[in-house]
Order: sequence, then C-alpha cells, then structure tokens
Amino acid sequence: MNWELNDFIKVKDVGPRDGLQMEKNFIPTEEKIKLINALSKTGVHGIQVTSLVHPKAVPQLADAEIVMKNIERQASVKYSVLVPNERGAERAVPLQADEWELMHSVTESHSRSNANKSVDESLKEHERVVKIARENNVTVQGGMATALGCPFEGKVPFERVLYTAEAYYSMGIRHIGVADTIGCADPKLVYTTMKRLIDKFPDVEFSLHLHNTRGMALANVLAGINAGVLYFDASIGGLGGCPYAPGATGNVATEDLVHMLDLMNLQSGVDLDQLLTIAKDVERLVGHKLESTIHRAGPSYQIHHAPAAQEKLAK
Amino acid sequence: MNWELNDFIKVKDVGPRDGLQMEKNFIPTEEKIKLINALSKTGVHGIQVTSLVHPKAVPQLADAEIVMKNIERQASVKYSVLVPNERGAERAVPLQADEWELMHSVTESHSRSNANKSVDESLKEHERVVKIARENNVTVQGGMATALGCPFEGKVPFERVLYTAEAYYSMGIRHIGVADTIGCADPKLVYTTMKRLIDKFPDVEFSLHLHNTRGMALANVLAGINAGVLYFDASIGGLGGCPYAPGATGNVATEDLVHMLDLMNLQSGVDLDQLLTIAKDVERLVGHKLESTIHRAGPSYQIHHAPAAQEKLAK
Repeated sequence: MNWELNDFIKVKDVGPRDGLQMEKNFIPTEEKIKLINALSKTGVHGIQVTSLVHPKAVPQLADAEIVMKNIERQASVKYSVLVPNERGAERAVPLQADEWELMHSVTESHSRSNANKSVDESLKEHERVVKIARENNVTVQGGMATALGCPFEGKVPFERVLYTAEAYYSMGIRHIGVADTIGCADPKLVYTTMKRLIDKFPDVEFSLHLHNTRGMALANVLAGINAGVLYFDASIGGLGGCPYAPGATGNVATEDLVHMLDLMNLQSGVDLDQLLTIAKDVERLVGHKLESTIHRAGPSYQIHHAPAAQEKLAK
Repeated sequence: MNWELNDFIKVKDVGPRDGLQMEKNFIPTEEKIKLINALSKTGVHGIQVTSLVHPKAVPQLADAEIVMKNIERQASVKYSVLVPNERGAERAVPLQADEWELMHSVTESHSRSNANKSVDESLKEHERVVKIARENNVTVQGGMATALGCPFEGKVPFERVLYTAEAYYSMGIRHIGVADTIGCADPKLVYTTMKRLIDKFPDVEFSLHLHNTRGMALANVLAGINAGVLYFDASIGGLGGCPYAPGATGNVATEDLVHMLDLMNLQSGVDLDQLLTIAKDVERLVGHKLESTIHRAGPSYQIHHAPAAQEKLAK
C-alpha cells in the first residue's frame, strides 16, 4: 500500500446536481446558487452544477439555466453540467460551462431503464453531443454508470466497461468518470478495474464516483488511490441516494472524503471547516438528517474535555 | 496492496457485551442468551459474551454469570468475558470462559477517566488478573483502548502503545487487541501502527477493534489486513457507540465486515445471511434503528428487478 503519495487529489462536489436531484421538495433556485457559491470557495476542483435534462423528467433541475447564469464563478473551479442528449447540448452551449458530463450506463438493462436507449444508441447520441461540444470548445467528461455493478445485472464483466471506455476514447474524450451507481463495489473490484483502465488508457484521466450505500466508500477511495486514481466525486453532506435501495445512503460525503485525506496527509486543497459550515446549512435546506459521518460526529482532531469526574480525580 | 490473501480472517462478535452495554433499556437475560446462541452458529471465531464489571457500573451486564452459565457453547467458538480487575477475575474463574479480555487505556487521561487508575496502576492490576488466569488455565487477551486516538489527548504517540504492548508481552500475553475507541483512526495510522507492532512482536497475534464513527471502519479493515492483521472485532448490527460523540455510530457491524470480506473473496467462515436474520431480531430487541449498512441496504449481490417501464420497453 502506497502511503507516501505526493500527488494532489482532486475533488468534485456533485451535491448541487446529483445530490439535490434526489430531494423530493423543490429547493429554491436562489438557495442552489448560494450553495454553489459557498462550495466554490472551499477549494474543490470542480462542481457539478446542474443537468440539462428535460424539466419534466427532473423538475428539481428545471432551473438549470438560471442557476448557471447567476452563480459567481471562481477561476480555480471547473463548473460542469450534465448533458444527457443533443437537446441538452443545445441548451448547454450558451451557458459556457467548463465541462460537459456525459452519463452512460455500460449495461444494457440499466441503459434502457435509465436513458430509454440501448448502449449503442446512447453512445451514438453522445457522439453527436461531443461534436457540438468540440464546435464550442467545451471539454467533455465521459461517465460510466453501472461500471462497478448493475442493479439489474449484478456483476458487470470488465469487457462492458472497456467497450464504453474505448468508445469514449475514440470520440477523443480524455476524462472518464467511473461510477459505482448503486454502491455495491468492493475495494478489490475498484482496484482491479481502475488498474486495468489506467494501464490500457495511460493518457486518460479517470475519476471515481463512489456511493457509501454499503459502508465501503472510503475503503474504495483507498483502493482507487492505490490503483492510481487522483480524482473523486463527492457530495456535500452525503446528499443523494439510490432509488433501488430504500433507506440506503448515497454519494460519499465531501466532508468524509476530505477528512480522511487530511488525516492521511493527502493534499486536496479543500477546507474541511468550510465544508462543515455548508453542511449545516444544507441540512436545514433539505430538512432531513444528512448521512455525512463528520457532520454527525465531528472531525477526528476534535479533542473532548475530560469529564468532570476525571478532573476531580486529578486534583 | 495485497488482494490475493489466502489467510483466513477471524471475526469476533462483541455485540453481546460492547454493543448491548450502550443500550439504555435492560435487555432481558434470556434474550441475551438467545442472541449469543444464534451468533454461535454463524461461523464467528469468537464472541465477547459479557463483562465481569461491577453491576452498579454497568447494570446492563449485571446478569453476567447467568448468561455465561446458560449459553449453549459451540466447540468452534471462543467465548470471552471482559475482566476489568481482580474482583472480576474471581467472579470469572467458575464461568470457564475460553478467554479473558483485559481492557486498558494506553493514555493517562482516558485510563483515569475510564478505570479510575493511572496507566501503571492499571497494568499492575492486570498483572494480578493474568496470574489468576494462568492458575486457572485461561488464555488472556490484552486490550489497548485509545491506542489509535484518545478523546482527551488526541493523537497518541506510538511510544504509549508500545509501552502497554511491552507490559502485556512481559506478562506472557500473546494476543493483543488494538482499539480505535472513539473511531478517529485513519487507514494510514492503522497501517503504520499495526505494521510496527507486528514487526516488533512477531509471535503476538494482534486483532483490531474498529469503530465506524467517521465512516472509515472498512477502510481501516483494509489497511489492517494489508499490515498483516487477520483478526477483527465487530458487532452485530453495528451495536455500540461512543459516549463522547452523540449521534455517532459505534462498532463496525459484523455484517458489513463479513459482506466486504465475502466480496473480496477473503474467507472468514461467517454466514452473512444468518447475520442478517439475527440483525433483524436485534433491531426489534433494542427498539431503534441499527447502523449496519447491509441491514439497511441489503448485500451487493442482491439483483433488483428492472422496473415495469423497462419491461414494457423490452416488449
């Protein structure tokens, strides 16, 4: 295990899109903007701002344009939007995001269920989106949902992952996000998958999108780092969830990730205290308990006071 | 990272003692016995049955003798009891536990707060307990609380850990449990601490007692395994907690641990399905939500049915 890593770890907060998308109550547009502006100052490398999905499909993100136009951008932060299809690409062009994110399921059943398209149909559509991006000088991140497990098919053969990665590569994409969509991946799977991908595509930057559904998110981060991954998605407060596993937690919390990296002396440039302040506001905003462990328990470096009994004893 | 480990991983369930001790309502003695009997059949290596602490200090475990005398023991399972002092040792002798567990804080402030003794006073008392154990042919496990972080002192110098380990070693103890008492340890700390201990005491079996307070329990298991640790405490349902961190989770859940080991093809001999059945009973028994993620979300191998929409599409 390599503990003396000198590389910088990039963190993208996907809370504003992937997190809020799971919230039942509409979050007011000005609150979304406030949240993104606050996250912009924490030191995160990127923020997944919103999605240009059809407003009927995801009413929570119907304000995509207003949000993108009104956030205060920091030069150090990459602002990305999810672009699900050509129509979304047309909407995205005037918004001048730093990056468009494609989301694509590597398994047929999930692709059909989630995008109403076969894997090849979805990749064809993405090709057209990439063309529009290129014409507008926008970077594209290819996303691979269900790459580490599918809710319908279970274990996913690496060949399926490779198939999509190769398709993305041939489109000229050099940043690919690998997602544990339902939070079923274990560290060994994460390590072997990422190692094979990195070996096969040395000029591609791979990032990991991990869920804490089964308590393994931070173990998977560790496995990912050991395989050479230096870029992780996370969500403020642990916002987000999985529609197929009721009561299950969602994205790994940004504060949990940064807390562990801090303890291990791995540099992310993200300020934990700021994240914890934002998480408090987020909890009020969504009106339910957050899954973030650091929000609940406080950081490890908090020293508690010895109880009164001990102070008495000491005298 | 070593993923092709062939060694067997031992699991000790500490739920009946360390877990139930945190429950406010008294758990009926017959229910404790039922729980231990059920755990005995899951394949766990050991069960921490109870503690011979003063009944006034921990009323929940006032039935220690009745529990120990009435459980149905399996030959394959090591039944251990916590022996806090000489008085406890005298009570423990007739109970014929397979192992006595000592609990000792490696930091002065925690030792005084928890045991009302200095570190050296506590070790002296343990020496007398070990003598009684030896006279009665009982194996002793030395426990090191706060070895990976102290609620009052924060980071713990390795010298403090070494001091207690050496004291235990010179008492003839060859199994030492290292505890992350407040769930503040990170994987790097776990790895470096365990590696140094194993290198220094090659003939000692070290086990790890990890809490999931800050979401790092399974990452720490991974780090421990990589350092050469093959023995882990865990608690059914994730029972247990930390009095210093309200709202924080406690012990890593046995089902979460076994689930991850299963996925990684590491053999523990523990049956996950049985654990999940027991966890359901435990939830009813304690009357509150369990922290176990697998109890909440189900194992990774559960394949969900494609939603109706997709079935329609397929036609």
